[in-house]
Amino acid sequence: MKQSKLFPKTKKEAPRDAMAVNHKLLVRGGFINQLMAGSWTLLPLGWRVVCKITQIIREEMNSISAQEVLMPLMHPKEIWNETGRWDSAAEVMYKLKDSREKEFALSFTHEEIVLDLVRKYLQSYVDLPIKIYHFSTKFRNEPRATSGILRGREFLMKDLYSLHATKEDFLKYYEEVSEAYLRAFSRLGLKIILTEAAGGVFTQNRTREFQVVASVGEDTIYVCNKCNAGFNKEIFKGKHGDQCPKCKGILEERRAIEVGNIFPFDTYYSEKMGVYFTDKAGAKKPVWFGSYGIGITRVLGAIVEIFHDEKGIIWPKQVSPFAVHLIQIENTKKVKTASEKLYKEFIKQNIEVLYDDRIDKTAGEKFMDADLIGVPLRIVVSERSLAKNSFELKQRSDNQKTELVKTVKILAKLKSLKIL
Amino acid sequence: MKQSKLFPKTKKEAPRDAMAVNHKLLVRGGFINQLMAGSWTLLPLGWRVVCKITQIIREEMNSISAQEVLMPLMHPKEIWNETGRWDSAAEVMYKLKDSREKEFALSFTHEEIVLDLVRKYLQSYVDLPIKIYHFSTKFRNEPRATSGILRGREFLMKDLYSLHATKEDFLKYYEEVSEAYLRAFSRLGLKIILTEAAGGVFTQNRTREFQVVASVGEDTIYVCNKCNAGFNKEIFKGKHGDQCPKCKGILEERRAIEVGNIFPFDTYYSEKMGVYFTDKAGAKKPVWFGSYGIGITRVLGAIVEIFHDEKGIIWPKQVSPFAVHLIQIENTKKVKTASEKLYKEFIKQNIEVLYDDRIDKTAGEKFMDADLIGVPLRIVVSERSLAKNSFELKQRSDNQKTELVKTVKILAKLKSLKIL
Repeated sequence: MKQSKLFPKTKKEAPRDAMAVNHKLLVRGGFINQLMAGSWTLLPLGWRVVCKITQIIREEMNSISAQEVLMPLMHPKEIWNETGRWDSAAEVMYKLKDSREKEFALSFTHEEIVLDLVRKYLQSYVDLPIKIYHFSTKFRNEPRATSGILRGREFLMKDLYSLHATKEDFLKYYEEVSEAYLRAFSRLGLKIILTEAAGGVFTQNRTREFQVVASVGEDTIYVCNKCNAGFNKEIFKGKHGDQCPKCKGILEERRAIEVGNIFPFDTYYSEKMGVYFTDKAGAKKPVWFGSYGIGITRVLGAIVEIFHDEKGIIWPKQVSPFAVHLIQIENTKKVKTASEKLYKEFIKQNIEVLYDDRIDKTAGEKFMDADLIGVPLRIVVSERSLAKNSFELKQRSDNQKTELVKTVKILAKLKSLKIL
Repeated sequence: MKQSKLFPKTKKEAPRDAMAVNHKLLVRGGFINQLMAGSWTLLPLGWRVVCKITQIIREEMNSISAQEVLMPLMHPKEIWNETGRWDSAAEVMYKLKDSREKEFALSFTHEEIVLDLVRKYLQSYVDLPIKIYHFSTKFRNEPRATSGILRGREFLMKDLYSLHATKEDFLKYYEEVSEAYLRAFSRLGLKIILTEAAGGVFTQNRTREFQVVASVGEDTIYVCNKCNAGFNKEIFKGKHGDQCPKCKGILEERRAIEVGNIFPFDTYYSEKMGVYFTDKAGAKKPVWFGSYGIGITRVLGAIVEIFHDEKGIIWPKQVSPFAVHLIQIENTKKVKTASEKLYKEFIKQNIEVLYDDRIDKTAGEKFMDADLIGVPLRIVVSERSLAKNSFELKQRSDNQKTELVKTVKILAKLKSLKIL
């Protein structure tokens, strides 16, 4: 994409109310824009990153034989009444009435909707297990929606739901999902503290949270200095310095961002909603049920909290909006011709490239924008480099080094960097 | 994917209230399930088709240099008040209040939101044109939500918005979008009647609709028997048999499904919302604005209305949930081994395959399901075919012919059919 056409331009100043790094950098870089408190437009750059995040998670969900669907966002009151959550979760739900006085809730989660769907089809144990997930919008009436895109009133989530005939099969899959989550977060560049936690409006069982240590995080967790186990403060009665219940190591208090969680519901919701099946012996049994979430837009924010410096974002290459930032310095015929030729070659080779073709910006302004946007690899075309039959290569993560690469060797170089 | 694992199973009976073909076949085939009137879950098969439709449209949008974003679904009342549509479009809007008594509308379209976004960035003519689109959920309080997935209260739409410095640039792009739409629909297998229409709650200008002739359609249009021009009944005062205003041909009345529309707003909304820029001469000007929609889930329904027979759906191959339906007849060791080998080979070759590995179904039941689901190419593995060192090939669209293909030549055959 040509940067002269990219909507919108970067901003020099962060919004006055922006406290969190992700808020400042994502807004300044032109990745997101705030419609109102807790509600964001994903701009072209931000949407590209979200698509990369989504695809990595999709691959890991498919690898544990989950099937992708898309469920509605507006839900009838009657279904939420079956579990009692129309009332018990009222605090976080947005509710509305239509012109016929029928009442609805906006999706803050989908357990009830999944169970209603499955009970229309489920007959016997041969129909189980069922594992379905979707990427979709969630709405939560958060009292405060600060921290940039980390906590929204409207946000994107991946939620997976699994239904099983036996406790054993359920627990086995619960561990499979946990492993798949760790693989996904590792691919996303995030170091996870697997954290024991309470289930909030979801369950009385202990749940498992996937936490990323970061000072901006809204959760307080204790992390063992020996075995790295995590415990959410809300469930762990001990204070800083107490012993780890797993290995007797020392617990240290940390602020963290919850990027994922998994909930074992056992048969609690199934019984409430009458989701039964016939087992091998012909007996009627309630289905075993779990749900598993990843906050997609929260992952976007968490990555920025971890990967940045004072100049801007430093995207891990697997989620970067582009693989290469091609920067044309000076608008001489020679530089312009060489830049455009390289741009066309990259497109031909299916290399995702952002091409800074702007003629009204200085080299300094272009470099500042490139640092802010944070594409991991920068290729600069200038009179100086071309005089040496070369392009200048620079890694965003590397503050100093610029490498000269002969123009004829540029594709080979990208191949060695695993970009081609 | 193994059909034994696919959620859900097909149904023998259509819902009792289903009148439209798309409703009956998509529900029976396990593509969609109704949550409530006008609200559908896209099940794994349905979601796969929607992803194919989406990707074709995305490619055509990108080809006219539009940039993909994602805008919020819950909108503040204040922005809708700026154009007066909080009141004037109240009939179709869902509205809600949060616990702080702040009022919101659910997205039935995004013109106001786009203009609010752009005015935060727009300064001068060099920032124009801007062309952004998204695939997202729309909510419309429809009095009746029948016709299966053709008319929903919650549905998927692709909406593109373009902003221009001059009328000339705007009108040029308006035609470019129109051409891109025709290319997209042609790739989707739909024959379009380009139809002149009124703008409803959107504009007083004439608009352009992309109509597909089908008896289930809710629109009445007049189509010229000579030049194929279309006119929506709502704007055309003439009666059946009148002359075509373009070529004097005869107009014939048809029922049709509106799958897309494009709206020229000129500067009407920009002026109301104060979206101005500085032109070359330094003068302050309102921006030229248009919006362009395609009903994604409606396209899903329209395709089924066009491509089916009494046995089920016949997907055009570019939108089929799978490229090949591999059917194992009999559960003998020989047939099972050959089927699984072929299944693995297809996966290795990146051929999207649905493998009917079920051992509790007869050949007849499997063929009925395959006809219903409608994958265009069927490959049958049986004792009879293997005795001739062959597989049986059958096109879904072809009622009679079965072709024997030597097992060693199957990939070459798929190559000749452009599936590999």
